[in-house]
Amino acid sequence: IYVSQLSADAVDLGVYQHYMQKEIHEQPRAVADTIEGVIDNGVDVDTLFGDSATGVFRDIDAVLVLASGTSYYAGLVAKYWIEGVAGIRTDVELGHEYRYRDSIANPRQLVVTISQSGETLDTMEALKRAKELGHGNTLSICNVRESAIPRASRLVFYTRAGMEIGVASTKAFTTQLVSLYTLALAIAKAKGKLTAEREAAELEQLRFVPGSIQHALNLEPQVQAWAERFAQKEHALFLGRGIHYPVALEGALKLKEISYIHAEAYPAGELKHGPLALVDSNMPVVVIAPNDALLEKVKSNMQEVRARGGELYVFADLDSHFTESEGVHVIRTPRYSGVLSPIAHTIPVQLLAYHTALKRGTDVDKPRNLAKSVTVE
Amino acid sequence: IYVSQLSADAVDLGVYQHYMQKEIHEQPRAVADTIEGVIDNGVDVDTLFGDSATGVFRDIDAVLVLASGTSYYAGLVAKYWIEGVAGIRTDVELGHEYRYRDSIANPRQLVVTISQSGETLDTMEALKRAKELGHGNTLSICNVRESAIPRASRLVFYTRAGMEIGVASTKAFTTQLVSLYTLALAIAKAKGKLTAEREAAELEQLRFVPGSIQHALNLEPQVQAWAERFAQKEHALFLGRGIHYPVALEGALKLKEISYIHAEAYPAGELKHGPLALVDSNMPVVVIAPNDALLEKVKSNMQEVRARGGELYVFADLDSHFTESEGVHVIRTPRYSGVLSPIAHTIPVQLLAYHTALKRGTDVDKPRNLAKSVTVE
Repeated sequence: IYVSQLSADAVDLGVYQHYMQKEIHEQPRAVADTIEGVIDNGVDVDTLFGDSATGVFRDIDAVLVLASGTSYYAGLVAKYWIEGVAGIRTDVELGHEYRYRDSIANPRQLVVTISQSGETLDTMEALKRAKELGHGNTLSICNVRESAIPRASRLVFYTRAGMEIGVASTKAFTTQLVSLYTLALAIAKAKGKLTAEREAAELEQLRFVPGSIQHALNLEPQVQAWAERFAQKEHALFLGRGIHYPVALEGALKLKEISYIHAEAYPAGELKHGPLALVDSNMPVVVIAPNDALLEKVKSNMQEVRARGGELYVFADLDSHFTESEGVHVIRTPRYSGVLSPIAHTIPVQLLAYHTALKRGTDVDKPRNLAKSVTVE
Repeated sequence: IYVSQLSADAVDLGVYQHYMQKEIHEQPRAVADTIEGVIDNGVDVDTLFGDSATGVFRDIDAVLVLASGTSYYAGLVAKYWIEGVAGIRTDVELGHEYRYRDSIANPRQLVVTISQSGETLDTMEALKRAKELGHGNTLSICNVRESAIPRASRLVFYTRAGMEIGVASTKAFTTQLVSLYTLALAIAKAKGKLTAEREAAELEQLRFVPGSIQHALNLEPQVQAWAERFAQKEHALFLGRGIHYPVALEGALKLKEISYIHAEAYPAGELKHGPLALVDSNMPVVVIAPNDALLEKVKSNMQEVRARGGELYVFADLDSHFTESEGVHVIRTPRYSGVLSPIAHTIPVQLLAYHTALKRGTDVDKPRNLAKSVTVE
């Protein structure tokens, strides 16, 4: 007999209208739970990732992340972190693409799979394929204990998001992000690249993350006001650059999934290479950009479409000097927190999708055509 | 005094209504011109790419392609070719992303820039950045002789597309593709990985390309019939897998640029991870898939949205057994030509964008908000 460890709490909506809303608001806690071990005991590689982790991480010369959907976007952020913190080249590939193509296996590459359920078929099949190709160093980042993918992996790091019921992933994504940052630190440490001072400084940064998520949650009323306007639209563009481009992707995906608005993300620099033709009063442009220079560039690109009614919705951080003007709306996000900035910037795009869907009256927790875990092809 | 070498022919529309239409139809010739040297004399590496090319290609251990927009999509196809034919790992990055991020330079990596005009600002700046980081092995794939990017590069391969006037690139893209395939062959040859038999067989395949482009052009009436229906829509999804995913990206970009329809491309396997929620009668789904297995999978994903009126438009090749059914439309593309298949499959998506824009009455050759060469940030 399997006894569920699910507490009544986990499935009770409490004061919330939807599981998605509840799960968005659980993020400060879910993220704090996920990094608790690191905060308390430092980057203790074997305790965090498994007994042989130090040896495995020390010997790798590259990382390959395999995932799909939201988890894939977490992988895109991780690329910046692992390359930046540990100095190890990182590739990120969609599981369903990887499993069907010929690739040159490198046995010194660490294969990292990311899946909330641990049962995502494409990711599981990609892992099998990697193992067939000779990859022995495998690590699963997963939210559901003892599910198929962690069982098939050498090393495991469990996110402690708790049960996620809403089909559109929220707390699973942000807990994946802090787990992946922890992985970057662990690889650096195993390779002797993380000094004690640096480690202390990194932990200090991590400690601030739940607080900056809470700060971002406090933006809800402002985001709600934007949602009123988005609910009237059928299109949206999300722009970001570098480490914030995956946040743009995630924002567009959330809006697609639950509000059925056709939102699409681009790296900001691509705007002039095509998508700018689409921009008019029907196509709001959301910019995730805690960076004055990028904002000024996007703004100058937009000048010419202001005449067509194109409007900018900007998430800029407190240090940004970017100001509102005709057709340019700004919400101030938590102060720029260095490379961890994508985590806090995810919160307002989740809220934007949620409140827009609410206004449109869609079935937020069970969007049409989608399943929570994609266990078929 | 600069004497233009432009012939009257190049700017005369002749029987065509738009430059874009003319340029689409010039592709068999443009592609044949571009590969003429290879077809006539084989893969003569130094003659094709520059005096020191054999030495440069022999010593590289990786390739980095830098480009934007349509040229970037050409790079995504090239990744499959260079990795598959020459066995060299290939990364493809947007110039405007590369220039603003920290990256670990590898002096043994060949940096390949792709730009029709040779003046694309982001690509030029990315090339400068690569050189600052110590990259000495640089190659430009370019259509305009003696423009800035080839002048700043060690090696050059000129596409012979002739002048391209339509803002939405067509013949520049397909000539870039054959140039990049030639590059894959040249790297393989310089590394001693291309046997005489294999070289002969590859040249035989290349020789067929202009013919299969012509065959694809003959599909125009069928594509035109589809365009009548697309002209009524405001959205479209384009799906592909592996080497055909960049063709889906290119098809979506063309439709965006000139018809202002919000078209978006996804690797087919991502459909279930989010975008499927968008599909209803307002969102036609185009599949570029000369592959029965993928077609069956996409079709089974679509079953559940047939009830909402979702319709599939499939480009399947002559060898495919995929048949039309309620809500599933099929156009047969030229017989699957192995890894060169993306070239011929580009033609029908160009035609679809062109005829859809024509029906919608947009300014096909000068779409709103866009410039032919992006020489500003």
